[in-house]
Amino acid sequence: MANRVYNFSAGPAMLPTPVMQKIQAEFLDYQGLGASIVEISHRLPIFRKILDSAESLFRELTNLPNNYRVLFMHGGAQMQFSVVPLNLMNRNKHKGSYLITGRWGILAEKEAQRYGNTEILMDGKEYEYRQIPEFDTSTLDQESSYAHLTTNNTLYGTRWHSFPDTGSVPLAADATSDILSREMDYSQFGIVYAGFQKNLGISGTAIVIIREDLLGHALPETPKLLNYALFDEHHSIPNTINVFGVYVMHLVLEWVKEHGGVPEMEKLAEKKSGMLYDVLDHSDFYKAVAHPEHRSTMNVTFHFPEEKLLQKFLTESDNEGMFGLMGHAQVGGARASIYNAMPLEGVEALASFMKEFERKNG
Amino acid sequence: MANRVYNFSAGPAMLPTPVMQKIQAEFLDYQGLGASIVEISHRLPIFRKILDSAESLFRELTNLPNNYRVLFMHGGAQMQFSVVPLNLMNRNKHKGSYLITGRWGILAEKEAQRYGNTEILMDGKEYEYRQIPEFDTSTLDQESSYAHLTTNNTLYGTRWHSFPDTGSVPLAADATSDILSREMDYSQFGIVYAGFQKNLGISGTAIVIIREDLLGHALPETPKLLNYALFDEHHSIPNTINVFGVYVMHLVLEWVKEHGGVPEMEKLAEKKSGMLYDVLDHSDFYKAVAHPEHRSTMNVTFHFPEEKLLQKFLTESDNEGMFGLMGHAQVGGARASIYNAMPLEGVEALASFMKEFERKNG
Repeated sequence: MANRVYNFSAGPAMLPTPVMQKIQAEFLDYQGLGASIVEISHRLPIFRKILDSAESLFRELTNLPNNYRVLFMHGGAQMQFSVVPLNLMNRNKHKGSYLITGRWGILAEKEAQRYGNTEILMDGKEYEYRQIPEFDTSTLDQESSYAHLTTNNTLYGTRWHSFPDTGSVPLAADATSDILSREMDYSQFGIVYAGFQKNLGISGTAIVIIREDLLGHALPETPKLLNYALFDEHHSIPNTINVFGVYVMHLVLEWVKEHGGVPEMEKLAEKKSGMLYDVLDHSDFYKAVAHPEHRSTMNVTFHFPEEKLLQKFLTESDNEGMFGLMGHAQVGGARASIYNAMPLEGVEALASFMKEFERKNG
Repeated sequence: MANRVYNFSAGPAMLPTPVMQKIQAEFLDYQGLGASIVEISHRLPIFRKILDSAESLFRELTNLPNNYRVLFMHGGAQMQFSVVPLNLMNRNKHKGSYLITGRWGILAEKEAQRYGNTEILMDGKEYEYRQIPEFDTSTLDQESSYAHLTTNNTLYGTRWHSFPDTGSVPLAADATSDILSREMDYSQFGIVYAGFQKNLGISGTAIVIIREDLLGHALPETPKLLNYALFDEHHSIPNTINVFGVYVMHLVLEWVKEHGGVPEMEKLAEKKSGMLYDVLDHSDFYKAVAHPEHRSTMNVTFHFPEEKLLQKFLTESDNEGMFGLMGHAQVGGARASIYNAMPLEGVEALASFMKEFERKNG
């Protein structure tokens, strides 16, 4: 087998090795077709079968209620920062309410300003986004078009453990960095969206889960290929879809199912992150970024006593076959992204390495 | 080597076999990194090198003038039907002028209506799009924001052999189905765009070549990730790019260069298409769709004396290892798409098969 490192990249991120091997094995000739899956029409039944199966698997894995649609759209989660207001702002008060827990929420709110009024009901800025502030749901205007939050904050390693009850206001969630890693009750949400490149596959495409009554409210200036209703009507193929992205996602979903589904992914995520937080909690050397009460199970973030130790840590961990541990420029320090595909052994190796690094440099 | 058919799909379409083999070989471990190219950050120098090299190669292959920028954007060519007016309509008279030579032009004009006035200066409808009508350039308002055309019409197998002089009005061209298959003087155009999935790689992304003075005119409602100026400023990575799509395109561009560049691609295209048109021209059986004066070198389209012969043709050609010959639903009949990656042998095989099929069924 090819040399494969433990890849802690924040996204695009590592995929399950069996999935990667399957893609490689059938890359030149998909199911005896004599052509690759990337070389055939997205309108052929052989691809439609993959698309349909991907949707069914996602529904099964998430226990998705029947009144929700599943769409696959171009451009990743950041495109949805525009797409959500374009499609939802035209309801009630033309107002988007934002709960800000970090960089992605900030960008989402900024983008929504183009299409209506926005209000920031909560902002973790005063905590440097190391924790999720208390949110008083009574401050939410029930005439607001939607309320938006980010479920997991990749940069800081924080997450919402439970989600606020927004009443009649549809809750829109960017779940890019923790989708399928935790059980979620989708009926709490109006929209959930996620870029593929962390827990669902490769970059370029996003999944959108939307309650059906929220379709059909797009602003007139909505570009055709950013309109939820059109994607729903054409089963995500109003134009040429990212065929390879959907194909990879389908294999990832099959892998998740074979490995016990979301409940097992959640247990594994808690075990893996717990192992790293345990190192941080028993250390006077590393300094955890996230507040203990709001820790992510997907991204574990920490600083060093001196900044120069970071480079040493990165070089030495890289030599030990652990890749991609540099933190986001805005936060600094190190970050271990441990999405579903990261095996327990990778995290064990990192935990040992961290302890040894502390012993030598502490 | 894996079983590989001659794949005449209209797009997504076949890629050069050596490119496919290289992708397969390094899929699990890119250049000793221990991770796949799809599993690493789009911000890493190792990916940036690919992106920069892709741009340089494209510039070299097209002799692109220095005052043009090269952008890679989400969503394929149809997304550009919205993106062009969003970025250009806000100039002069807020008017987009359209030269319609088929389905894609129709859809482009319709989409532009959201963002300003449009006018159709020419429409091949009366010819059922079998030919490109004469265009009187004096009918073009020189205060128009832009003039739009489709260089090659995949459905009907027609193309513009030369392009109209639009004077001071920037000419915007959808070149999805013939980019890099013919020498083009880019200085005639304000914008040229193309989805990747025919001559550039796989579906999901588009290339945009834009004259630099046309940047910075976006309408205020332009979604951030559809703004040309932002993609220019961030060198096509304002957010997570379709890493695999760019990587594949880079390999395709290298392959084009190794095989003599655009002049050789053009010669080969003329030879391949000539071989098929020769069969059509010497037949009382097949009926060519495209007018002889406006024939495409990329898509060769034809009908049968009776519609039921089409299914027979498709089944028998498929049995002979020739795949994807069904015409577009809107035109009917058969279509052989023979993009750069289609080897001469594939077209020779098809030409022989067509003659034999005529002999047996004529």
